[in-house]
Amino acid sequence: MATAEKPQYKVIGTRPVRHDGVDKVTGRARYGADTQLTGMLFGATLRSPYAHANIKSIDTSKAEALPGVRAVLTNADLPEQGDRIVELGEGAVNMRHLNANVLAKEKVQYKGHAIAAVAADTIHIAEEACKLIEVDFEVLEPVLDVVKAMADDAPILNDDIRTESLGSHPASDDASKNTNVAKHFVFEKGDIGKGFEEADIVIEREFDTATVHQGYIEPHASTAHWNADGKITVWTCTQGTFSVRHQTAELCGVPISDVKVIPTEIGGGFGGKISVYLPPVAAGLSKKTGQPVKLVMDRAAVFEATGPTPGSHMKVKIGATKDGKITAGEAWIAFEAGAYTGSPIAPGCMCVFSCYDVPHAKVDGFDVCVNKPRTNAYRAPGSTQVCFATETIVDEICKELDIEPAEFRLNNAAKEGVRRVDGPVYGKVGMIETLQAIKDSDHYQTPLTGKFQGRGIATGFWFNCGLKSAATATVNPDGTVSLVEGSTDIGGSRAGLAMQLAECLGITAEEVKPAVVDTDSVGYTDVTGGSRVTFATGIAAINAGKDIQQQMCARAAMIWDCDEADVRYEDGCIIGSGDNRFTFKELAAKINATGGPIAGRGTASEETQTGAFGTHCADVEVDADTGKVQILRYTAAQDVGTAIHPSYVEGQLQGGAVQGIGWALNEEYWYGEEGSMRNASFLDYRIPTIYDVPMIETILVEVPDPGHPYGVRGVGEVPICPPPAAIANAIYDAIGVRMRDLPMAPHKVCAEVLKK
Amino acid sequence: MATAEKPQYKVIGTRPVRHDGVDKVTGRARYGADTQLTGMLFGATLRSPYAHANIKSIDTSKAEALPGVRAVLTNADLPEQGDRIVELGEGAVNMRHLNANVLAKEKVQYKGHAIAAVAADTIHIAEEACKLIEVDFEVLEPVLDVVKAMADDAPILNDDIRTESLGSHPASDDASKNTNVAKHFVFEKGDIGKGFEEADIVIEREFDTATVHQGYIEPHASTAHWNADGKITVWTCTQGTFSVRHQTAELCGVPISDVKVIPTEIGGGFGGKISVYLPPVAAGLSKKTGQPVKLVMDRAAVFEATGPTPGSHMKVKIGATKDGKITAGEAWIAFEAGAYTGSPIAPGCMCVFSCYDVPHAKVDGFDVCVNKPRTNAYRAPGSTQVCFATETIVDEICKELDIEPAEFRLNNAAKEGVRRVDGPVYGKVGMIETLQAIKDSDHYQTPLTGKFQGRGIATGFWFNCGLKSAATATVNPDGTVSLVEGSTDIGGSRAGLAMQLAECLGITAEEVKPAVVDTDSVGYTDVTGGSRVTFATGIAAINAGKDIQQQMCARAAMIWDCDEADVRYEDGCIIGSGDNRFTFKELAAKINATGGPIAGRGTASEETQTGAFGTHCADVEVDADTGKVQILRYTAAQDVGTAIHPSYVEGQLQGGAVQGIGWALNEEYWYGEEGSMRNASFLDYRIPTIYDVPMIETILVEVPDPGHPYGVRGVGEVPICPPPAAIANAIYDAIGVRMRDLPMAPHKVCAEVLKK
Repeated sequence: MATAEKPQYKVIGTRPVRHDGVDKVTGRARYGADTQLTGMLFGATLRSPYAHANIKSIDTSKAEALPGVRAVLTNADLPEQGDRIVELGEGAVNMRHLNANVLAKEKVQYKGHAIAAVAADTIHIAEEACKLIEVDFEVLEPVLDVVKAMADDAPILNDDIRTESLGSHPASDDASKNTNVAKHFVFEKGDIGKGFEEADIVIEREFDTATVHQGYIEPHASTAHWNADGKITVWTCTQGTFSVRHQTAELCGVPISDVKVIPTEIGGGFGGKISVYLPPVAAGLSKKTGQPVKLVMDRAAVFEATGPTPGSHMKVKIGATKDGKITAGEAWIAFEAGAYTGSPIAPGCMCVFSCYDVPHAKVDGFDVCVNKPRTNAYRAPGSTQVCFATETIVDEICKELDIEPAEFRLNNAAKEGVRRVDGPVYGKVGMIETLQAIKDSDHYQTPLTGKFQGRGIATGFWFNCGLKSAATATVNPDGTVSLVEGSTDIGGSRAGLAMQLAECLGITAEEVKPAVVDTDSVGYTDVTGGSRVTFATGIAAINAGKDIQQQMCARAAMIWDCDEADVRYEDGCIIGSGDNRFTFKELAAKINATGGPIAGRGTASEETQTGAFGTHCADVEVDADTGKVQILRYTAAQDVGTAIHPSYVEGQLQGGAVQGIGWALNEEYWYGEEGSMRNASFLDYRIPTIYDVPMIETILVEVPDPGHPYGVRGVGEVPICPPPAAIANAIYDAIGVRMRDLPMAPHKVCAEVLKK
Repeated sequence: MATAEKPQYKVIGTRPVRHDGVDKVTGRARYGADTQLTGMLFGATLRSPYAHANIKSIDTSKAEALPGVRAVLTNADLPEQGDRIVELGEGAVNMRHLNANVLAKEKVQYKGHAIAAVAADTIHIAEEACKLIEVDFEVLEPVLDVVKAMADDAPILNDDIRTESLGSHPASDDASKNTNVAKHFVFEKGDIGKGFEEADIVIEREFDTATVHQGYIEPHASTAHWNADGKITVWTCTQGTFSVRHQTAELCGVPISDVKVIPTEIGGGFGGKISVYLPPVAAGLSKKTGQPVKLVMDRAAVFEATGPTPGSHMKVKIGATKDGKITAGEAWIAFEAGAYTGSPIAPGCMCVFSCYDVPHAKVDGFDVCVNKPRTNAYRAPGSTQVCFATETIVDEICKELDIEPAEFRLNNAAKEGVRRVDGPVYGKVGMIETLQAIKDSDHYQTPLTGKFQGRGIATGFWFNCGLKSAATATVNPDGTVSLVEGSTDIGGSRAGLAMQLAECLGITAEEVKPAVVDTDSVGYTDVTGGSRVTFATGIAAINAGKDIQQQMCARAAMIWDCDEADVRYEDGCIIGSGDNRFTFKELAAKINATGGPIAGRGTASEETQTGAFGTHCADVEVDADTGKVQILRYTAAQDVGTAIHPSYVEGQLQGGAVQGIGWALNEEYWYGEEGSMRNASFLDYRIPTIYDVPMIETILVEVPDPGHPYGVRGVGEVPICPPPAAIANAIYDAIGVRMRDLPMAPHKVCAEVLKK
C-alpha cells in the first residue's frame, strides 16, 4: 500500500471489527423478510406471463371470494399520477411510468410485470388467490433488442414517449414521433473532424453487452402499515430510506411526512434497491385491510421484475498518432432502458472517454425502451459497458502501434486539469498512480509462460457522487458516543463512519456506536449509492464531531470558570491553561451533572467528489477446445483516496472485480423469442463462484481527495469497470482473438476461434 | 381558565389531536408484551410463597430436564454487586439490594419475591418448569407494619443496614446497630419550642396510610437479547430508557454503552416503571440461550412484586394563634420502604409543611424496611401521605377557631420568598391563586343542602423536577419537522413537546412529528417522572428549534447573498431586508438543494422547577348505615403554569384526583398475618370505577414558571395529593367524625360513627 506523505491518523487506516459484524455472522441481523407484526397479513403478486400485452380486463372476484383473502389490489386502486416528473433521490423520475411499473396499468411491458397483489392470512392462501385472478390479455409483439427497438417499424412500448434531446450539444431529434428512444444525449468537445485528421491510426469497433443482474443475496421484501390516521410505516431493505419515503408518498398520494420508512439490514443492493417495487403495493393492501402487509419476492421475481443493468449496443472510434497520443474519440451508445425510460445512459456518455485526455470527442447516447424489466443502477452504472468498448480499442491501438499498454495509458492519462467530454475539469485524481502501481506490481513484473495464456490490463473510472447527508451524535457518560445516521449500510459504512467520528474526537472506533435509523429520526440523507456514503455521510459525521468538540470545550470552560477561547480540543483531550486538562472520557463522565447532555449535529451537501480510477491486470488461460476462460491471476489497483478501513476498501475492490468477472465471462439474461427469461434462477444465471476466481490481489493507491477532511474518495463503483476489458485483452493476448460481445462465454470464444 | 396577561401564543393553549392518538385507539400501538422476534423464547418466574424466609438451597435440575426448557436463571448467575451505591436516573441506588430484589439472594423478603426464572420454547413449558424448581426454605417471622419494624425486637430484614442520619440537621442515630430503619432525615427551621409557645392552639394527631399500587393498566414486560458480541438489546415499557440502560448494565456487569434500550409504548407508569425487574433477568436468560427472551408479568406479580407507594405512620403537630396564623409545625413520619431501603421519605419530609409559611418547624422522617415489596415512586411520591395529615389538622384548627378554611389557608399560604423546612425559598408560585380560584368557583359558591352531606377542601404541593433531557429535530422538505426525543410518553408528552417546538418555529402542531427513540439514537434523557418532561424536555425541544431558526436564517442569508445579521426569524418566517422573505415551508423546500439538510439539537439541564400547588374541593354524602362515602361533586384547581395542551392538563388533574380518591376510599394491600397479599387482583383490589366518581371539574390557574421560556410548570403530580384530606374534611363536615386512617373504607367510617 502506498502511504507516502500520509497524515498520522490514529483510527483511520486501522482494521477494527465492524460494529454490525457479530449480528451478521450469528444470524441475528434482521433483514427485510424478518419483519413480524401483530395482525400482519401476507401478500403475493400476480405477474405477467407475457413480455408485451394489453390488459383488456382483470377479474379479481374469485380471488376475493377465497376464504382467508383480505384484499386484492390492482393499479386501479393507486392514485393517478398524470405526467409528472419528480426529483427523487435517484434522479428525475417519470411518475406515470413508476406507477405503471409497480402495478401494470392497461398493459404489461415485460414478463414478470406485476399486475395484481393479494393480502391473505397466509402466504399460501395469497399465492392460491393469485391463480384465481382472471386477466384478459391482448398479446403484442415484444421487442427485446436495443437496435431493433430503435428501428422505425419497431413495436412501441409507451405511447407517451418522444425523444428528449439532451447533453452539452443537444441534437434536433424529431419531437413529434412516438418512439422507443426516450433520450438522446450529445456531448461534444473540440472538433472531432480535426482530431481524426491528426490521427495516424483510427480504430472503430462495435460492441454488445448483455443484461446483467446485481445478484444481491437478499430478495426485495417490504412490510407496510397504512394507519387509520393516514400515516404509513414501511419496513424494508433499501439503499435509501428517504427515497423510499418519497416514492411511496408520491405513489400513495400522501405528503412525505406521512410516511415513515424503517430500514432493516440489507443483503446487498449494488444500485438495485433504490427504486420501489413493493412498498406502495404493501401500503395499498394495508389501506384496504387496516392490517400490516408483508410482501417478499422470490428469486424469479427479482430477476424478472427488478432493475438489472441495461444491455447495450455501442460503436466506438478512437484515433491516435503513431507515437501513441490519442487525438480523437467518437462514441455511439445505445442502452436498453427496459420497459420504461431511465437507463444510466448519461453516466455511460460521461465515462466512455473519461480515463484519457482526449482533445476532440463526441458522444451520442440513447435511452431505449425494450420489453425487459425497467433497468436500474448497478455499480458504476453505465461505466462498465463503455469501459469494455474503449479499453479493448485502446489495447488494439497499442498492439497496432506496438506500444506497451500501460505506457500508452500513462501517456494519455486523465489528470488534474484535463476536461472531460461532458464538461468537468479534473481536480487531484490518481489514474497515473494506479497505472504506475500495476506496472510496478509483482503480478505485472512476473512473465506468463504457459500456452494459451495471456495478460490484459484496463483502466476504469467513476466520478463518485456527493449529495446530502445528515448525522447526529450524542456523548454517553461512559465516554462512548452514539452516532445516528441515515445511510443504510450495504458495504461496511457504519464502521467507516464511526471511524471518522472517532478520529475527529480522538477516541477509538469501538467507542463510537453507529446506528442507521428511520426517516423520522435523522435529517434528510440521500441514497447509499454512487460511492458517496463514506465521503458525504462521513463529512456529516465529522461535522457532528466538531459540534461536540466545541460544546465539550465550552463545558470545560464553564467547569474551569475560564474563557471559552482559552480551551482547545486536541488529540482526544480538552485542554485549558495550566494543568487544566480532561480526556474525552473524563469530561463525558461529568457533563450530565454540569450543564446536561451534549449532542452534536452535522450535515453535508456536496456537489460531487473528484472521481476515482482503477487499473486492473488479468491473466487468463483459454481452453482452446471448449472456449472456457480461466482467470489465473488478477490484481486491482485503485486510487482510493484515504482508505478509512483498508479491509473494507480491499473488499470493495475484490467484490467489484468479481462482479466484473461475472459480466465478462458468465452473466446474462437468456431470453426466448417470446420474451421470457429462461434462466431466472441462481442455478441457471451463473454468478462467479469460488471455483471461478482466484484471490483478487489489491493495491490501494492513496491519493487523498482534497474535498474531504481526511481525503476520502468513494471506492465502491470503480472496480467493476475494468474486468471485462482486461479479460478481453488477456484473451487476445492468449489466443489472438478479439471479443466484443459480453459475456465472453465459451461458445462465443469458440466461435471467434473458428473464424480465425 | 384564568388567562390574564397571557402572551399571545399560536399553538400553545390549543388542543390538537395527539400524535399517537390513532395508534392507541385503533390498537396498533405496540406495548411491552407485543415484542416479537425470530427465535424468541418465553420466560416465566418462580416467586416466593413466603414473606420472609432463608433460602437454604435451590435445585433447578428437574426444571432444566423438562423438554423445551432452554435455561434456568438464579441470582447465582448474576454478577456480585458488593456494597455499591450507584446514582441512577431515579436517585442513588444500593446495588446489592437492587440485585437481590431482581432475583432473591440467600433469602426472600416478601411474598412474590422472584427466586428463579425459566426460558422455554413456550410460556406453558416455562410455567410448568417453574413448578419443578425445588427450593428449601427456612421460614422466618415477617414484619409487616412500619411501627413494629422499628421496634428493638423486630425481625431484621437486611443484615447490612445501619441507620443513616441525613437532612439539614442529621440526628445522632446509633450507627452500630443492625436495624430496619435505613434512613433518618431531620429537617429544622427556626425554633419549634418558641413556635409552639406562641400558639394559642396546638393540635397533634396520628395517621396511618395504606400500601397502595399505581394500578397502571399494562403489566411489566421486557424482552432482551444478549448478543454474541456482548451487546444487550432490551425492548421494554419504561418511564426511563436511560435508567433501564444504566440499571441493566450495572446488574449485568457490562458498560452502559453495551446496552441499548428500545422503548415500546407504555400503558401507565405513575412512578412504578422506573426500577427494573425483568430486563436483567431476560438478559441473563438470553445470555445462557443465545436467543431473545421475553418476560411478561401477570397482575398478581405486578401487585406482589413491583413497587407500590409506602404505607405510613405519621404524627403531626401544628400550632396557630387564635387569629389564624400558623406558628409552628412538627412531624414524625415513618414510611414503609418494603423489603429494601428506598421509600420517598425525603420528599415526604419536604412536602409535609410545604403549603404554608411555617416560621418554626421540625420534621423527622424514617425509611423502614418491612416484608412487603420494595416500594417505589407513585405520583408526587410521599406527598399524598403527608398532605393527608397536615390538611386534616389544618381543617381541625379552622373548625376550632371558626375560621373559614380557605381564608385560613390564604392567611398562611406559601408564596414567593417563603422558605421551606428543607431549605429552598419559593419563587413565583400560585398557591394563593388556586385557593382564590376555588373560593370563586361555582362549586364553592353553591351550598350543600342534603342530610349527611359535607364539603372539604385541601391543598397539595409538589416541587417538580428539572433534570436532564436532549432532543434533535430535522427539517423535512415538505415543511414538517421530525422531533426526536428520549422521554417515554406516559401522559401525552409527545403532543406537548411537539407543540412547544411548533410554537418556537411558528408552524402547526401537526407539522411537528415527535418520536421517542432508543438510547442509541438521542442524547441522555432522565426518567419521565417528577412532572419534568413537558418542562425540561420542552426546553430541549425549544433549544433544538432555536438551533434550526439560526441555521434557517444563515441559509436564507446565503441564498439572498446578504449578511446573516440582516436576517431574522419571526412568526414562522425568515425575513431579510426589502422583500426578502421566506415562510418556513418555502425555505424548507429549498434547503436540500442549497447547502443540504438542516438538523437542530437542544439539551436541558435544570436544577428544579418552581413547584406547583393545587387546591381541591370535595362534596360527599355518607351513608350512615353502611359507612359508604359517595363523592357528589369534585373540583380541582391547580397552578399549571402555562397549559401547553389544556386537555391533557385537565386530564392530569382529573386522573390524579381519581387516583387520590382511590387512596382515600378504597385502595389498600390486604395482608394476611403470614404476610401474603389477599387481594392481588383488580377484582379484589378496587380502584375507582366510573360509578365511584363524578366528572372531575378542573380550574387551570396559569401562573407561568419564570424558569421556562413559555412558563411551563409540571402538572402531573400535584393533583393526587389533596383528595384524601379534602374527602376526610368533607366526611367530618357531613357526619362529624375525623378519619385518620386511609383508606376511609365503609367499615372504618362505621367504626368511627359508632365511637361517637
